[in-house]
Amino acid sequence: MSADPSDRRIPVAVLGATGSVGQRFVSLLADHPWFRLAELTASERSAGKTYRDATAWHQETPMPDAVRDMTVLPTDPEGQPLTSTLLFSALDASAADRVEMPFTRAGHYVCSNARSHRMDSDVPLMVPEVNPDHLALLDAQDFGGGRLMTNPNCSTIGLTLALKPLAAAFGIEAVSVVTLQAASGAGIPGVPSLSLIDNIVPHIGGEEEKLERETQKILGTAAASAIEPAQFVVSATCTRVPVIDGHTLCVSVRLDTMADFDEVIAQLQGFTGEPQALGLPSAPAAPLVFHDAPDRPQPRLDRGAGSGMAASVGRLRTCRLLDYKFVALSHNTLRGAAGGSILVAELALAQGRLPGLHIPQ
Amino acid sequence: MSADPSDRRIPVAVLGATGSVGQRFVSLLADHPWFRLAELTASERSAGKTYRDATAWHQETPMPDAVRDMTVLPTDPEGQPLTSTLLFSALDASAADRVEMPFTRAGHYVCSNARSHRMDSDVPLMVPEVNPDHLALLDAQDFGGGRLMTNPNCSTIGLTLALKPLAAAFGIEAVSVVTLQAASGAGIPGVPSLSLIDNIVPHIGGEEEKLERETQKILGTAAASAIEPAQFVVSATCTRVPVIDGHTLCVSVRLDTMADFDEVIAQLQGFTGEPQALGLPSAPAAPLVFHDAPDRPQPRLDRGAGSGMAASVGRLRTCRLLDYKFVALSHNTLRGAAGGSILVAELALAQGRLPGLHIPQ
Amino acid sequence: MSADPSDRRIPVAVLGATGSVGQRFVSLLADHPWFRLAELTASERSAGKTYRDATAWHQETPMPDAVRDMTVLPTDPEGQPLTSTLLFSALDASAADRVEMPFTRAGHYVCSNARSHRMDSDVPLMVPEVNPDHLALLDAQDFGGGRLMTNPNCSTIGLTLALKPLAAAFGIEAVSVVTLQAASGAGIPGVPSLSLIDNIVPHIGGEEEKLERETQKILGTAAASAIEPAQFVVSATCTRVPVIDGHTLCVSVRLDTMADFDEVIAQLQGFTGEPQALGLPSAPAAPLVFHDAPDRPQPRLDRGAGSGMAASVGRLRTCRLLDYKFVALSHNTLRGAAGGSILVAELALAQGRLPGLHIPQ
Amino acid sequence: MSADPSDRRIPVAVLGATGSVGQRFVSLLADHPWFRLAELTASERSAGKTYRDATAWHQETPMPDAVRDMTVLPTDPEGQPLTSTLLFSALDASAADRVEMPFTRAGHYVCSNARSHRMDSDVPLMVPEVNPDHLALLDAQDFGGGRLMTNPNCSTIGLTLALKPLAAAFGIEAVSVVTLQAASGAGIPGVPSLSLIDNIVPHIGGEEEKLERETQKILGTAAASAIEPAQFVVSATCTRVPVIDGHTLCVSVRLDTMADFDEVIAQLQGFTGEPQALGLPSAPAAPLVFHDAPDRPQPRLDRGAGSGMAASVGRLRTCRLLDYKFVALSHNTLRGAAGGSILVAELALAQGRLPGLHIPQ
Repeated sequence: MSADPSDRRIPVAVLGATGSVGQRFVSLLADHPWFRLAELTASERSAGKTYRDATAWHQETPMPDAVRDMTVLPTDPEGQPLTSTLLFSALDASAADRVEMPFTRAGHYVCSNARSHRMDSDVPLMVPEVNPDHLALLDAQDFGGGRLMTNPNCSTIGLTLALKPLAAAFGIEAVSVVTLQAASGAGIPGVPSLSLIDNIVPHIGGEEEKLERETQKILGTAAASAIEPAQFVVSATCTRVPVIDGHTLCVSVRLDTMADFDEVIAQLQGFTGEPQALGLPSAPAAPLVFHDAPDRPQPRLDRGAGSGMAASVGRLRTCRLLDYKFVALSHNTLRGAAGGSILVAELALAQGRLPGLHIPQ
Repeated sequence: MSADPSDRRIPVAVLGATGSVGQRFVSLLADHPWFRLAELTASERSAGKTYRDATAWHQETPMPDAVRDMTVLPTDPEGQPLTSTLLFSALDASAADRVEMPFTRAGHYVCSNARSHRMDSDVPLMVPEVNPDHLALLDAQDFGGGRLMTNPNCSTIGLTLALKPLAAAFGIEAVSVVTLQAASGAGIPGVPSLSLIDNIVPHIGGEEEKLERETQKILGTAAASAIEPAQFVVSATCTRVPVIDGHTLCVSVRLDTMADFDEVIAQLQGFTGEPQALGLPSAPAAPLVFHDAPDRPQPRLDRGAGSGMAASVGRLRTCRLLDYKFVALSHNTLRGAAGGSILVAELALAQGRLPGLHIPQ
Repeated sequence: MSADPSDRRIPVAVLGATGSVGQRFVSLLADHPWFRLAELTASERSAGKTYRDATAWHQETPMPDAVRDMTVLPTDPEGQPLTSTLLFSALDASAADRVEMPFTRAGHYVCSNARSHRMDSDVPLMVPEVNPDHLALLDAQDFGGGRLMTNPNCSTIGLTLALKPLAAAFGIEAVSVVTLQAASGAGIPGVPSLSLIDNIVPHIGGEEEKLERETQKILGTAAASAIEPAQFVVSATCTRVPVIDGHTLCVSVRLDTMADFDEVIAQLQGFTGEPQALGLPSAPAAPLVFHDAPDRPQPRLDRGAGSGMAASVGRLRTCRLLDYKFVALSHNTLRGAAGGSILVAELALAQGRLPGLHIPQ
Repeated sequence: MSADPSDRRIPVAVLGATGSVGQRFVSLLADHPWFRLAELTASERSAGKTYRDATAWHQETPMPDAVRDMTVLPTDPEGQPLTSTLLFSALDASAADRVEMPFTRAGHYVCSNARSHRMDSDVPLMVPEVNPDHLALLDAQDFGGGRLMTNPNCSTIGLTLALKPLAAAFGIEAVSVVTLQAASGAGIPGVPSLSLIDNIVPHIGGEEEKLERETQKILGTAAASAIEPAQFVVSATCTRVPVIDGHTLCVSVRLDTMADFDEVIAQLQGFTGEPQALGLPSAPAAPLVFHDAPDRPQPRLDRGAGSGMAASVGRLRTCRLLDYKFVALSHNTLRGAAGGSILVAELALAQGRLPGLHIPQ
């Protein structure tokens, strides 16, 4: 954030930096080896204040010193141009609807955590270990020089990470998933405490449809200028439980080619991806942590795996209805939001798909 | 509990009366119109004490006055005969293994909440609205004049209540269920608080197998002297969540005969059973409460339906994988344990299957 | 609620009937022996709808049948006169500021749960077992024939109930109190779940001042046309904890006249009040339940004492700093809000202070 | 843990390494710059197993690689001598009663987290920023060459850290404290979840006495060979709340010399101690973090301050009864247990009070 001339890192901006996901971006970018947090935007109401004054900081680590006195800019592609080429969007969907495409058309490279453009045919929806080839869509984008890439809904990431090695080795025919999602997924103020003390809420508006469709896109096939979604059926039920961070997924899967138990474990344990091969800064050592213990993964104990960037899988067993059942878990505000988005930018940079930007030496 | 000679109610005993389920039996039997709580048993350690002294009462209603000074008896079919013919067993499985059959062979009618004899071929496993005809097994029992009947595991009751109208109208081909179960299902001390603050535990030992097998028996067909289990597949995943009472079940079902949405709702809303027809004292007005609201049922708001004896069903929608999905909920320590067991005894009495006992006039 | 001509009960209205406290009023008044729920008001937005359509009912018991189809009226003393003389106000403070005095001046008898007029010198602030004589202020009110009476903040009620017998027997010189307050005290949506999962919030805006001042008024002395507040010091700290209902108070007290342990217990156990003497319908058998067990009272186990209308006291022990320490607990939305307000109306009626209204025979 | 000859760090052992506090010691010592984790002991039952097999690891970070295959030794000062001179005791009180003194008399330097010897007149009870001079007691110990030092109960540490600057600047006359303590303070399995869902427990056996007495010893005066306890009165009430880690304390204090608000803030904000001056590895930058925000400190947001080694103070305001009130918070299993104990050892080493041991260069 300093203008230290010896700092060769790429300047970046966070759009919507004062909210819940925005704060996570700020925390993760504070010491990033490739990116330098140069600009912060928020709503009109916060613009002009220092970040410290504009933000009700509620992270468990302190606000990074370097951002405390930065001036918050308005999120306004017309009125307030940004000097950073690379933008991370922590905007909610209604703001993202308005500004992400204008920023892109103005030549920015936008990594968005919002749902607004995830299902657009020319926008890649990325989980870097799962579909790194989908980033090729960026080259075909016709947005006036800008690029727009997205990461999926927080519950989709854990599911696709767990399914990918099975899809690659055996093919997938059908998936049934019931989620137990953390309260932080609903942001601030989010779910009232009266709904989550001695209670669960078996409904999250729109979540099931997102989980079903995004999974099919991410596990789909990259064609010339679009993604052919995977053809397998996904049926999702989404619930909210009294957990701060960490979405748990109870998954059943039918494989195209039946595999025995040891083969399935071997694929889950051996899974690795392009982020690991490239040594991306935010990539966990392994994208999946496999558990033998019968009662794992659990949100409080396992959401932190790989600094919150690895998913965990356990309770693998045969299913009387489909073929196999397991429990997957991932951190919804790290891997499932800000961290996942940063990993997408790292991958795009490493693949050389962001013209003019290079990994700092 | 008085020896009031004008009290024509049937004297009953509760086995294991000081534990969690035992306390529920005591609460529910305190003012029962047909049964008079006459004897209480517990472990050797508690025998001889007053119920007040022997019991760490943790119900949300006060200990009934009439039991406070009753002397706790040992649970010992040889050493301590009981004068009540009808016994309610709140014993854990290891104690039930030892004493339920001896009590039965000594001529008692035992209504058990324990898992010990649920899957015995000559013992009915009862959800009174679902399989009232299975009680005919009692007539064929060869236990020396005694009778032994059971109610299922707390998670099975809500599932079978919700499935019964669908099975009856359309037939069932397959069921997938993920449970979010309350902490009280694990008894006292049960699950440590460190496991259920900011956490869920995606595993309950032995529960999935019980839920799968018991459902098939309860929805099976009564043959001459045994039950032919239902042939449909049940695949279960069981998790523990930070809820005091009320098990939530996320269910997907494939029907034998496809039915449209309105037909399914009509069956769920119109469901009623023999306990309702007979007006049994513990029967709720309707065994199922159907919810239109998109976020119901919820444990804290709906577990009390029908004084905790009705199950709730909501979020009915089509399933991309099977045919329909819904969320069911029932109170695990009322309908799912003590209350369910009392309802079984009421049904057996009303069906005239407990020789020598009659509904008090 | 019917217009059954044989129903001799007094028609009453609930102001602000769709909110959290309003729902409690509706539940409690549904079967009241003296009052008949005749009118319901809410904000302009809800007016004209049926109560069922206007209300997001979230009580643990179902919405009473009789109110489901009642039409909600606007809360508008000028535009919409009410036919009921007796009004229960569940309004929040800003609405109460606007309409309670106009309704009173229009001749209504208003029992308010809002804070707006609690500290007015000519308005009684009532805990019926504690200061029944303060209702005499009603006779001196100069509000054009109407009457206005209030009940205190939810945390004040438990404190004053516990202090009253000590004040009466020994006098009180100083009180230190730390509260652990339930989430329902903040209404709906109230406290975000992220603030009360694995967390407590050691601050409730304005609560400490209310608890300190209201306690002094309630334990004060009724003079001609005002209340002389008690002279003892109260120092309060208020915190919010992850509990649905039930405020816990850790209290230390210095007495004017030192008393030994048994005398203190005797006063707490023997405490009774005018509501008990008069047999008011909402009065618990005893206003205080005293606990010997070292770990009681606890919110979940004890808030329901006396149908939620009795406070509980336990852990009595000497204090190294003041004289005695104890833990008190009361139900904040029953005794601490709607139920407390109804008890005030019952007392006023029984004392004959509501001209024209009489206890139905 | 390697026997790498270039590793100049001091070998240490953890007694009771498999339990909850023991796991924290293992985590904190895995990368310690001065200490090398060389030996692990546990009960007879675990001895001979690898640490991995003997331990139900439930920390939120993974088990350190270096300890996974270490063999667990029995905790047996006679039968199993330890080669490490410096021992950290995570034993519960009954085991500590038996073995800490024998280990000490065998020449070991024992840093104990157990309560067994805290109040012994010749054993220092240490909070390094508060009473560093009390370590001089070590020089006078007559335990055959060994040394025994202790850290206090988890709730005492936050209280004494907050009181120390006030005691030093103004003197303290009286303290009233109510605690809201985290579940982890009760260890594993600890408090049942049924006690901490929608509930708090206003009682922790023996805790109030410990908090009162230990505070007086720690803030007392070091005399020749004993500590003269502070003369001010402490009155404590201890409660358990549904929080994983982080004890919150609501404190009122009467000063010897009245100070104005700004002076009090200045003392709290400016507080620093010998561990900071010496730059001890486990010392936080500042022992107290002062909060202006009206709703801080909160356990989930603030327990991690200074890597869990700093206490937080906020809500400073005048008290109507004593002089000032505030809320203090500290991490009960880091600063309040393992981390606090390690800091004591670091201080003893830096003060040169552990003959034969030196800070590695």
